[in-house]
Amino acid sequence: MYRIGIDIGGTNLKAGIVDEKNNLVESTYAPVRKGASPNEIIADACQLAEAAMGLSCISNSEIAGVGISCAGTCDTKTGRVIHAYNLGFENTPVCDLVNFRFHVPAKLANDADAQALAEVRAGSALGMENVLYICLGTGVGVGIIINGGIYSGCGYAGTEAGHMTLILDGEQCTCTESGCFEAYASATALIRQAKKAAASDPGSALNSLKKMGAKDIFGLADAGDETSVRVTKEYIRYLSAGITSLVNIFDPEAVVIGGGVANRGEKLLEPVREYVGKHIFGADSRKAPVITAAGFRDNAGVIGAAMLIKDGTE
Amino acid sequence: MYRIGIDIGGTNLKAGIVDEKNNLVESTYAPVRKGASPNEIIADACQLAEAAMGLSCISNSEIAGVGISCAGTCDTKTGRVIHAYNLGFENTPVCDLVNFRFHVPAKLANDADAQALAEVRAGSALGMENVLYICLGTGVGVGIIINGGIYSGCGYAGTEAGHMTLILDGEQCTCTESGCFEAYASATALIRQAKKAAASDPGSALNSLKKMGAKDIFGLADAGDETSVRVTKEYIRYLSAGITSLVNIFDPEAVVIGGGVANRGEKLLEPVREYVGKHIFGADSRKAPVITAAGFRDNAGVIGAAMLIKDGTE
Repeated sequence: MYRIGIDIGGTNLKAGIVDEKNNLVESTYAPVRKGASPNEIIADACQLAEAAMGLSCISNSEIAGVGISCAGTCDTKTGRVIHAYNLGFENTPVCDLVNFRFHVPAKLANDADAQALAEVRAGSALGMENVLYICLGTGVGVGIIINGGIYSGCGYAGTEAGHMTLILDGEQCTCTESGCFEAYASATALIRQAKKAAASDPGSALNSLKKMGAKDIFGLADAGDETSVRVTKEYIRYLSAGITSLVNIFDPEAVVIGGGVANRGEKLLEPVREYVGKHIFGADSRKAPVITAAGFRDNAGVIGAAMLIKDGTE
Repeated sequence: MYRIGIDIGGTNLKAGIVDEKNNLVESTYAPVRKGASPNEIIADACQLAEAAMGLSCISNSEIAGVGISCAGTCDTKTGRVIHAYNLGFENTPVCDLVNFRFHVPAKLANDADAQALAEVRAGSALGMENVLYICLGTGVGVGIIINGGIYSGCGYAGTEAGHMTLILDGEQCTCTESGCFEAYASATALIRQAKKAAASDPGSALNSLKKMGAKDIFGLADAGDETSVRVTKEYIRYLSAGITSLVNIFDPEAVVIGGGVANRGEKLLEPVREYVGKHIFGADSRKAPVITAAGFRDNAGVIGAAMLIKDGTE
């Protein structure tokens, strides 16, 4: 049997067919249409899945179920997205709608949770039981794996570890609170930190960037721009401090870092490991968890979503 | 069958006999002898348990096992206490030693974890699946219950949520790091905050206290001493901010507050509930977890320890 994975992000929709060995057989994608209603967005995602079925010549009878990974707060029990602000979803019965289209079981998870599942089932944390997946992008999404499965709290509001406090009364966060981990460790936060530093240092090469992305800032640091070096070091310190807190709380086997910022690879991971190794509780006498980059990148959401469905072989 | 619970704290040893309905049939206690070696401390604790058996006329054949709750970092899998600084324990094989004495299964857990278990099995969070227990005393101990059982991480270092960061680069913590939740929300932290405030306000009644405890500071706040009012309000804000972080991370059904500071009751809980209700992620549209005082007080450690042992009726 095959499983369909659908990944509904704030910007893009992706769908794919996943086989029993967790290989992505076929995938399709499209942007989220501007101004589309929640129902239209879900219909578009279903159409992408049907296109992937067509391309791989797989019929409905060969599909065990559809897993959906969605940005926002997901109620995994009812299959509803409670909120997804970027998508206009509000108490949206995603699983009911998908089931209505495909007539097979549908399961929902938050995107960071689905990606975390992909990492323990087939990625960088293969076979581990207690793992944190941290996705550094527009925000900071954290997927928590406990005893090999997604931990999503009491099921109503979902876990939002990106909004733990790192500095009480600190930097303003998008969530209306201030001082959240996300307000210091997202790609957006890095860009804000760099813009602030550039404004107070007119000589910095940061000022010559037409459009500033995390990659550009790291690039200038590599090229020796002192302001960029300072900004990226401080960013990594914030990120590492947040990871240290989460390691103290969960004592996980591994921390897997995904999202755009993770493309920085060892240049990011090495200083994070060094900080965490020095600053975790009982640092002198304990082993720090594995800290590694995500094994899946663009397709993590689709594959993780598909893994929400038991395919009959597990 | 009965179970023995042993609670090894930094200052006191307690032991008790617990029946199949989780009632404490008999209990005994003694101070930790100054200068005693780890083996001597454990022998003393075993002797207390034997005294409790004698008092209740229960023989070894009626004991299903011995659960041990211990301050410090516990490896629940090997039954060893990795560190307990106040006790001088260092990789101490507590379960082996207890088993050698009683010839029944022995199980170990960190004290906050055992107390958390007591709360979900028979206390304020009875029957709940995902619960945080926060013990406010000399330090801040956090016991994490997931799917009805103790979550103790990957088993080596234990969870130490008291050492998540609340204010990066903030107040010095006993763990050598700075800015930990514990450094703001323990009873010790409240006393430090009050001493600092008293020093800068010679007119405060705080300066008239011969010995300053959390209870005294709250008492002066009740009596209208302005400095004490300000200090206790700020303390509660720190505590609430830390709880808000943990609620965002775990989305638990309940947060149970124990330890000496919890004796403050509703005067503590009410403002904590108000803060958490306002500041949790998605506050506008979600229900905050139950925030309540622990159901067990002095005997939580003994009863929770006994609950580590299956008594054959579960």
